[in-house]
Amino acid sequence: MSTKENALSIFALGGLNEIGKNMYAIEYSNDIVMIDCGNKFPDESLLGIDLIIPDIAYLVENKDKVRALIVTHGHEDHIGGIPFFLKKLNVPVYATRFTLGLIEMKLKEHKILRESELVEIHSNSNLKIGGMDISFFKVTHSIPDCLGIVFQTPAGNIVHTGDFKFDLTPENNEERSDIHKMAEIGKEGVLLLLSESTNAERPGFTPSEQMVGEHVEAAFMKAKRKVILSTFASNISRVQQVVNAAQKTNRKLALLGRSMVNVVGVAMELGFLTVPDGMLIDPHEINEMEPGKVAILCTGSQGEPMAALARLSTGNFRGVDILPGDTVIFAAGPIPGNERNVTKIVDNLFVLGANVIYGPGSTSGMHVSGHGYQEDLKLMLTLMKPKYFIPIHGEFRMLHHHRLLAESVGVEQGNTFIINNGDVVDIEHTIARQTRKISVGNTYIDGGDVGNVGEFILRDRKQLSEDGMIMIVLTISKAEGKLISEPDTISRGFLDKDFSELRREVNRLTTETVNELRDENRNQWNVMKKQIKKSIRQYIYTHTKKKPMIVPILIEI
Amino acid sequence: MSTKENALSIFALGGLNEIGKNMYAIEYSNDIVMIDCGNKFPDESLLGIDLIIPDIAYLVENKDKVRALIVTHGHEDHIGGIPFFLKKLNVPVYATRFTLGLIEMKLKEHKILRESELVEIHSNSNLKIGGMDISFFKVTHSIPDCLGIVFQTPAGNIVHTGDFKFDLTPENNEERSDIHKMAEIGKEGVLLLLSESTNAERPGFTPSEQMVGEHVEAAFMKAKRKVILSTFASNISRVQQVVNAAQKTNRKLALLGRSMVNVVGVAMELGFLTVPDGMLIDPHEINEMEPGKVAILCTGSQGEPMAALARLSTGNFRGVDILPGDTVIFAAGPIPGNERNVTKIVDNLFVLGANVIYGPGSTSGMHVSGHGYQEDLKLMLTLMKPKYFIPIHGEFRMLHHHRLLAESVGVEQGNTFIINNGDVVDIEHTIARQTRKISVGNTYIDGGDVGNVGEFILRDRKQLSEDGMIMIVLTISKAEGKLISEPDTISRGFLDKDFSELRREVNRLTTETVNELRDENRNQWNVMKKQIKKSIRQYIYTHTKKKPMIVPILIEI
Repeated sequence: MSTKENALSIFALGGLNEIGKNMYAIEYSNDIVMIDCGNKFPDESLLGIDLIIPDIAYLVENKDKVRALIVTHGHEDHIGGIPFFLKKLNVPVYATRFTLGLIEMKLKEHKILRESELVEIHSNSNLKIGGMDISFFKVTHSIPDCLGIVFQTPAGNIVHTGDFKFDLTPENNEERSDIHKMAEIGKEGVLLLLSESTNAERPGFTPSEQMVGEHVEAAFMKAKRKVILSTFASNISRVQQVVNAAQKTNRKLALLGRSMVNVVGVAMELGFLTVPDGMLIDPHEINEMEPGKVAILCTGSQGEPMAALARLSTGNFRGVDILPGDTVIFAAGPIPGNERNVTKIVDNLFVLGANVIYGPGSTSGMHVSGHGYQEDLKLMLTLMKPKYFIPIHGEFRMLHHHRLLAESVGVEQGNTFIINNGDVVDIEHTIARQTRKISVGNTYIDGGDVGNVGEFILRDRKQLSEDGMIMIVLTISKAEGKLISEPDTISRGFLDKDFSELRREVNRLTTETVNELRDENRNQWNVMKKQIKKSIRQYIYTHTKKKPMIVPILIEI
Repeated sequence: MSTKENALSIFALGGLNEIGKNMYAIEYSNDIVMIDCGNKFPDESLLGIDLIIPDIAYLVENKDKVRALIVTHGHEDHIGGIPFFLKKLNVPVYATRFTLGLIEMKLKEHKILRESELVEIHSNSNLKIGGMDISFFKVTHSIPDCLGIVFQTPAGNIVHTGDFKFDLTPENNEERSDIHKMAEIGKEGVLLLLSESTNAERPGFTPSEQMVGEHVEAAFMKAKRKVILSTFASNISRVQQVVNAAQKTNRKLALLGRSMVNVVGVAMELGFLTVPDGMLIDPHEINEMEPGKVAILCTGSQGEPMAALARLSTGNFRGVDILPGDTVIFAAGPIPGNERNVTKIVDNLFVLGANVIYGPGSTSGMHVSGHGYQEDLKLMLTLMKPKYFIPIHGEFRMLHHHRLLAESVGVEQGNTFIINNGDVVDIEHTIARQTRKISVGNTYIDGGDVGNVGEFILRDRKQLSEDGMIMIVLTISKAEGKLISEPDTISRGFLDKDFSELRREVNRLTTETVNELRDENRNQWNVMKKQIKKSIRQYIYTHTKKKPMIVPILIEI
């Protein structure tokens, strides 16, 4: 990167033109401070891939410059890549108490907690890293203890919002955005704002969490039998609302699902969640209790097939049954792409006779987004009144709409940068320009290991998944160059009917190819393999319209 | 099935607890009349499958009873299985003019048009098939020429609604539901109603097509450059609205995408669509024209990766470019499951600088559903006032909500049957009961051929898609039962890094297993393969957390 003194640069290794794996960088003089290090879940096209994390090759090359990782909040798309990052770059990690609690769980799992340097900060902390003075401001989101960040540099001030919405009546007043501090920051002058764009397409203000609390309570009141509520474990405000509703209706509460148990544990331990003594019960106690006296809080609101709710919906959660008259509440909207998995579970729950409360977005009243809608975003832009603007955390259309919002509240046309991961915005003499880029990409995690899978392997998996594979084993005499016996054909994942005729023809074609090549004295293995593949591929496609992978295996004796 | 005289039975081979492959049956005495024969598109779990159609084994077994196929309308989920059905059961097909036009295209493609018996009907036709008098009534939907069906039998009258909504101001008045006729049918008495349930979860009435027409026109008026509108080719009302808007704004119109060209062709030929002379132009003429004087109507509103709109959005449609300032309209909501593909295209279009009008459901004003909402469904139930009710055409939660709607307008509790494909409702002495079922399932089309793929193959494909495959080739001496050379290990779709060490260990384990078994005199091939698989699977899983398919190939010399 630039080695100029006082040069200020901003770029992202993830989070632009995508939802997930957020990772942003502020570089001043020769110091790089990273913001967040998230993961992202693969779509169906990435066969077999477990997780995607940012490609940090650039940071590893410039490891002497990387000073710190600051984490805005504890969602997976902001912390999920941290263990992999720290294994390569062991820099101090700055985060608030709750966020650190979640990071610690992760580092423990990866067995690197002891060697990691974790530094607790809060919204009034001040850090000095290289030539940057770094301070923070509280923002409201759907997880406790969230921060926005201010980087004060001699070249100007940069603000990163973190994920946020404005909620004037949050479940927990401690979580209210510090609008006064934001106003001060704006007054002092913001050269560049990075603000999240998730809901830039949605008009209006985000509804308040209060609305959800009221609906949850009403549903608990109305329910005559068990209430089962599913939400994101990290949404501690929502969990608190459930605890409150359980208390008001005199119900005991059981937690189902590993992440629910873990995250609620952290939240209680750190004082972010208040649960009355004796309210929590073990899952195995549920069946012994009167159905009207018990509630269940569980994972699986996104339809994850192995999570608690999916197992409950098919009667596969040992010791806990959903029975006719039970109430099941989805207190989280489906993330795009998860709709079908969710509705499958809703169907199964109705089959069991449950009363199911569900619906897209906030239509059921049981969920509000943690991300600000258009008016929230405009309020942030208005408070900060930045000269330059980079919309972050979103797919292109969200970034695009966020730019329009910025221009509507006074950011000058041409001063918004819609950039890609890797594009660098350089600021010199308070003029911002985007002219250069660093190389970035995706790092795939497959089977617990990093970077074992490239495009090549994924292409093979795709072919195998659609059309399967045909192996042809040939035993060839070294001396005479001819087949010692009939070729042997094995298929996996191909078609099952009428394969015997295909097999005969495949064997005939193979034998023919071997003999032809022998006659032409071209019986090198590679030529032979290539010819066999070609003739079989053609034959199979003509007769089945399928393109299985063809693997000839030649054995020379 | 029952052989009793005057016995009346109803069942489905598809369409219940699913969206797609609709196929219903009415059996009276010894005559079976089928209603619709649709297809369904596979979800991601059905790797490599092209299409799903109803399993008609039961009909083939009872082919002497099957008298006719009546088709309510021309959507794929009602006609897509017809060619496969007719190849096994060549019965007459009854449908309206437009529906027959679409069926004919299909039969031509499958080269069975000539031997098929197609009978044109209209809403005033009367058929007598076996002991059933069959008449029809006009319904509004999102394709022209749709019917509901009345089966008059001595045992009572059965009504099948087809797909419908009520629209008092449709684009084409010919398509208005015949409410008067419905009222008469209801007055005469309906023993059992089968009514579609797609939108049973949505409150209110479906908005009118008129609303869309107004929005389309306004967008055409406002657009300064090219307008590109994508919708379902079969939605001829929508196409007519686009033609009208193009005429009003003095634009020529180009059609992109095979199904758009074909279906619009059929609609014009049969008089369902009126296009002014000289309005249609060839795609290659687009670039020669002033951008403000041209509009494009194309396929791909569901984000289909190979359709016209997807190709336009990535600059891969030869001869046609989307340029900054062009307007792109999605005049169809994304079907659940297609959201991500659609938003990917929206993103790409914004990148090209287009003004994109999109949004879920009817929020953009450019789309209304063809399926009645709750109030439409209640109106149908009220008009027909059936004694018994079977909600059809929907997933379980839709059927469930439709039952609640039926009960809210007077269908007695216990008189609604929520059944599965294959469940038979028998009516004797005007009493309906569901006690028996016939065997049904899915038939998969893979590579143009029917039924070549079973669960077994799909399981293999799944494993291959996630973890790939490892083949170990062993050459064993027949005489001594020992390995002649080092085992040879080949992998596909597995991991790419550090495979050499794994390979060494796999070879070592294999050799060890072969030698052990030889010492124990248990060197039968099956035992050997099983042992090799087991030891390698364990080793690979421990070291990579992956479970590739292990295929040992033994060659005895």
